[in-house]
Amino acid sequence: MSKTNPGNYFEDFQIGQEIRHATPRTITCGDVALYTGLYGPRFAVQSSDEFARSIGFQSAPVDDLLAFHMVFGKTVPDVSLNAVANLGYAGGVFGVPVYPGDTVSSVSTVIGLKENSNGKTGVVYVNSVGRNQRGEMVLDYNRWVMVRKRDENAPAPATVLPELPGMVAPEAFQIPVGLAMTSYETQLAGSPHRWDDYYVGEKIDHVNGMTLEESEHQIATRLYQNTAKVHFDQVAANEGRFGKRLIYGGHIISLARALSFNGLGNAFRIAAINAGAHANPAFAGDTVFAWSEVLGKFELPGRRDLGALRLRLVAVRNRQASDFPLRSEDGKYHPDVLLDFDYTVLMPR
Amino acid sequence: MSKTNPGNYFEDFQIGQEIRHATPRTITCGDVALYTGLYGPRFAVQSSDEFARSIGFQSAPVDDLLAFHMVFGKTVPDVSLNAVANLGYAGGVFGVPVYPGDTVSSVSTVIGLKENSNGKTGVVYVNSVGRNQRGEMVLDYNRWVMVRKRDENAPAPATVLPELPGMVAPEAFQIPVGLAMTSYETQLAGSPHRWDDYYVGEKIDHVNGMTLEESEHQIATRLYQNTAKVHFDQVAANEGRFGKRLIYGGHIISLARALSFNGLGNAFRIAAINAGAHANPAFAGDTVFAWSEVLGKFELPGRRDLGALRLRLVAVRNRQASDFPLRSEDGKYHPDVLLDFDYTVLMPR
Amino acid sequence: MSKTNPGNYFEDFQIGQEIRHATPRTITCGDVALYTGLYGPRFAVQSSDEFARSIGFQSAPVDDLLAFHMVFGKTVPDVSLNAVANLGYAGGVFGVPVYPGDTVSSVSTVIGLKENSNGKTGVVYVNSVGRNQRGEMVLDYNRWVMVRKRDENAPAPATVLPELPGMVAPEAFQIPVGLAMTSYETQLAGSPHRWDDYYVGEKIDHVNGMTLEESEHQIATRLYQNTAKVHFDQVAANEGRFGKRLIYGGHIISLARALSFNGLGNAFRIAAINAGAHANPAFAGDTVFAWSEVLGKFELPGRRDLGALRLRLVAVRNRQASDFPLRSEDGKYHPDVLLDFDYTVLMPR
Repeated sequence: MSKTNPGNYFEDFQIGQEIRHATPRTITCGDVALYTGLYGPRFAVQSSDEFARSIGFQSAPVDDLLAFHMVFGKTVPDVSLNAVANLGYAGGVFGVPVYPGDTVSSVSTVIGLKENSNGKTGVVYVNSVGRNQRGEMVLDYNRWVMVRKRDENAPAPATVLPELPGMVAPEAFQIPVGLAMTSYETQLAGSPHRWDDYYVGEKIDHVNGMTLEESEHQIATRLYQNTAKVHFDQVAANEGRFGKRLIYGGHIISLARALSFNGLGNAFRIAAINAGAHANPAFAGDTVFAWSEVLGKFELPGRRDLGALRLRLVAVRNRQASDFPLRSEDGKYHPDVLLDFDYTVLMPR
Repeated sequence: MSKTNPGNYFEDFQIGQEIRHATPRTITCGDVALYTGLYGPRFAVQSSDEFARSIGFQSAPVDDLLAFHMVFGKTVPDVSLNAVANLGYAGGVFGVPVYPGDTVSSVSTVIGLKENSNGKTGVVYVNSVGRNQRGEMVLDYNRWVMVRKRDENAPAPATVLPELPGMVAPEAFQIPVGLAMTSYETQLAGSPHRWDDYYVGEKIDHVNGMTLEESEHQIATRLYQNTAKVHFDQVAANEGRFGKRLIYGGHIISLARALSFNGLGNAFRIAAINAGAHANPAFAGDTVFAWSEVLGKFELPGRRDLGALRLRLVAVRNRQASDFPLRSEDGKYHPDVLLDFDYTVLMPR
Repeated sequence: MSKTNPGNYFEDFQIGQEIRHATPRTITCGDVALYTGLYGPRFAVQSSDEFARSIGFQSAPVDDLLAFHMVFGKTVPDVSLNAVANLGYAGGVFGVPVYPGDTVSSVSTVIGLKENSNGKTGVVYVNSVGRNQRGEMVLDYNRWVMVRKRDENAPAPATVLPELPGMVAPEAFQIPVGLAMTSYETQLAGSPHRWDDYYVGEKIDHVNGMTLEESEHQIATRLYQNTAKVHFDQVAANEGRFGKRLIYGGHIISLARALSFNGLGNAFRIAAINAGAHANPAFAGDTVFAWSEVLGKFELPGRRDLGALRLRLVAVRNRQASDFPLRSEDGKYHPDVLLDFDYTVLMPR
């Protein structure tokens, strides 16, 4: 019997199957420093223990996307090692904050299956839940991936398509216990703009650009213990469609989120991930710019100090984002667009 | 109103104006590890909790230049986002040591203004003070930058030039409380040469060279949350004078300081920054060498165990520094010189 | 007198000489995070405080090879600054686990000397011991290096060749106190294969490849405070045999060990290093693959829960390792082979 992990193929998945993923991971201030060095986020809550405590956190929580990558990374060897494409995300809810010292592990449940008509691949839907060492949920999200069949002659399973929300409803948000905005200082946070200052339909060009380097995305992706070989192996890449190592899509999400500080400096907490598409692959040498659109504004039940903004975050490559590129005339993503990410943040009012 | 930070232009600064900078930053052992990985410093005090305690520190303090970059980085969005050039430093004094877990924030005061005769730019002098979470000063320094005017027709302010010291006097040094050299072990520190072994005028070739990589300076500069776009954006660089991303000047200071360990291994603490000039821009691919000159020796009031050395630290590119290059015959910096840094260190006697 | 460290030349070494190396080093969770980002290891014991505690560690110990590099790095300025080649390792025993916060320092003793017949170089054998702040041994190993003579006319010392074991005997292993496998969960560890599932002679292709980047090996090598100039200085490299910066051999060991997780996921602790050869130099741009062979299986005295596997770990460049390349027909290492590493691991039964 081979000792190496072959990953799961389409016919290995069954509806209701629960997969307890390997490698529980203690997240430390070392991971946080590396995350800061790789993307340059400047949100005060995640940068300063003092600032975080002033609004009710026990200390600076780790970046929500760092928690996301850690939870996501664990699912790769079981869910997407034989994936052709990562198709989408839905219904992502962030739970209790993750603090340095917390240990995160992930469990996935298969919630949908649909074989493709070509008989060679199928779509697998999983719900993945990350929990800390006390069993508290830190992230609960769904994604679907196209996975190869091991044997093209294997019979197709019954098609099951899960009902997934187009948007996480505000009632589902998990506001960290004890959070209070009374002492939130916008000057220290680096932006005077509060929730009330934003309007639906507003578009923001985040101005700055960052050029991607091969070693940066590799270090990031290994930090998350994400093992997808397309990110690391130039010998395999030479035989592939692009001739280059593909950058982990989450690397682009984190970079775009860090760039979005310039315009959204008080968006201190991600409450939900509504949807996300990696419109085009990114490669080392690409320079990433970003823009955002306010898709929705939500008051939060019983709170006058805090509101939620639903945002579209778009990453663009090798050009400024000042004209807010998204789709071409044919309705497809513009070739310069890397990411179309729909998420919801908390912001002081 | 635009949500992004346009930065301040020359006419936005007023004498006496106080700017409380954004993003307080908790410095952790993660930042320290990354700093070590990026530059390779080997000073025992900053490398070992045990060694640091043996001479009176509570544990290993973070590298003084890491503290400098953190304090400096915060000033960039407010002071130098529209800067044409970083012209100089003076009167930099290091205060209480920074330990992992400390949170540092910065405040700057405008102490000088002078419009240039071309009417397009002006020089802004600021005094910047970094403090820890207890309000204790960790660094107090002055710098001046050339900043663009937003409107060339805006009237010139009255010229105010601050009086800045050519050198920080030994009386101004802040010797960490409790420091005692009795148990300082030079063998563990990696150099037998104490304060008494150096003489004014002595030049030291630090021998080793380090080649700069694009991802290294980007990771460093993001770690410091320094947002100056010239360091990160190749698309903008393609339109610029050099066609390349510029390396943050502080990256060269840190690299040269780490190289200077070979010859100055007991220079365990920076007491002051007297002056500094970034003689030429540095780019990825350049190999940095360094040499030092002893500019002065100072006994310290009431101490027989500790002395101060004033040093010139010169970084050179793409050639050995064994002939101590500094200026060309025309009096300008030699084209191979990157940095001319005048600072003062503490050393056991 | 020159203030810089010239390193030791062959005639500077004497049998029995003890060298207390500089720069004690506190290892932190920052070092651990960087190590994870640089190599991507996924062993659960080193990744999770919870998992580590479940089998008797006080928390997640640092990777054994991170401890090795830290102990090794300190010896470089004294032992191998003037080395021509790192010839071999033998008799390496890992002692107490290293935890974040521990401070490691190294002492070496010269145990062998043999001048080469060309009169220009000689072989120096040292025994190096790394200890933590309590004086407990964390690593004890021997290596031998070829070192230049300062003066070719210096007389040859009497030849002394140490007796070195071809393999560390199981009786010499230091099993961490309190270790118990009862609660070891193979699913969380990421591999179902226990000690009993492996057989002597079994070969495992670790499948995945990782491409080396210049900044990655530089960051790693500086993190270990290893100062060998061949790794960092492109100006010197341009004059050298390869025209490129050489990658620290230990970087390849760590990368191959991380790749070997895919097939050896329960090899959670290195007990011993038996031997090791850097068969060919590695450079940035090379893609590293790895394979292993089970050289031996050992029961451990008094233990039914734990066994030891002696493994050969071979790193290969720029090609898959599925045909297990090692030596060419002439008996020399195959030109694609980078590393032939003989070590022993502990694994749950």
